[in-house]
Amino acid sequence: MKALNDAIRTFGRGTGQNVVKVDMFLNHRIDTGLLFAMGRELADHFEKQRPTLVLTVEASGIALAVAAAHALGDLPVVFAKKSAASNQSGDMATAPVHSFTHQQDVQIRVDRRYIPIGSRVLIIDDFLAEGSAVGGLTRIVESLGAKVCGVGIGIEKGFQSGGQKLRESGVDLMSLAVIRSIHDGVIELEDD
Amino acid sequence: MKALNDAIRTFGRGTGQNVVKVDMFLNHRIDTGLLFAMGRELADHFEKQRPTLVLTVEASGIALAVAAAHALGDLPVVFAKKSAASNQSGDMATAPVHSFTHQQDVQIRVDRRYIPIGSRVLIIDDFLAEGSAVGGLTRIVESLGAKVCGVGIGIEKGFQSGGQKLRESGVDLMSLAVIRSIHDGVIELEDD
Repeated sequence: MKALNDAIRTFGRGTGQNVVKVDMFLNHRIDTGLLFAMGRELADHFEKQRPTLVLTVEASGIALAVAAAHALGDLPVVFAKKSAASNQSGDMATAPVHSFTHQQDVQIRVDRRYIPIGSRVLIIDDFLAEGSAVGGLTRIVESLGAKVCGVGIGIEKGFQSGGQKLRESGVDLMSLAVIRSIHDGVIELEDD
Repeated sequence: MKALNDAIRTFGRGTGQNVVKVDMFLNHRIDTGLLFAMGRELADHFEKQRPTLVLTVEASGIALAVAAAHALGDLPVVFAKKSAASNQSGDMATAPVHSFTHQQDVQIRVDRRYIPIGSRVLIIDDFLAEGSAVGGLTRIVESLGAKVCGVGIGIEKGFQSGGQKLRESGVDLMSLAVIRSIHDGVIELEDD
């Protein structure tokens, strides 16, 4: 997606070999115009899958999930939580996910009532690296008798294995931008 | 706001004297149509304040902030983070906030570059209780030479002190729904 590639080129900051900071427009400060254009692009691609629900994981997936769900005709959005809280019910489906950002494993959790049996679930997340979050969300969806009908990603790290694994498993994966490599802070993108 | 009051009456679950769960439509599963109607209502009220930026705190404030910012002509959204992460820069403005949901104090943090001096900041959050989050966000905004031009809230707990304190201090506060009381699980709303 050209506008996203342009934003990554202009504002993205690469660090070392695999960290890219997009704080300026995607996951700390949000460029709302770009966000809704990204949501529109994902909706155009996934409409044919007839999703009934959008699923993401807090916190930085929420904005893109909401934008995509709005463009898909205001589908409901469910976001998995990363911690237990006093206002949650006891009936949560859980899966372990490794957070590379926080260097730890977390149990993500979704209230079972919010993914009805037979749902066609579109998973949305801001980043795809090793695919740990998408894997955890998929396990939760399938454990509840629902089906993942697509995975929509803002930025895929093409040099990590998550995207390849998903494509090989036959998942309909769309990444709006793919980073081919980061070398000494220089970000190289797949062509738009 | 009638549609929000209706959703609280239909799906909200009161517990004890001060917990209201709106997981079903606002902060775990999101009713996207209602969310954007709420954003539109906040935008209609705050347009006159000419905000240049929307500020919220992760995670459950993000969806409403994005919807309001979209209705205000795609203003940028900044969300304060609740934990340090390896991909954050060192230059963060911080403030302590008490989380009643998690029963602990957290340091919320915002990258200083994302609230330019002179910004007119609209603070958005899903809930207002004692006003701890709004207070922390306000301290951050003012420490950066910017100004809070309004506070837009999804659901105010009218029986806690946050709303009264803000109104007395002259802040332009709009709460889309106000809960007057919760008694033995029964939620009483101020009239819509």
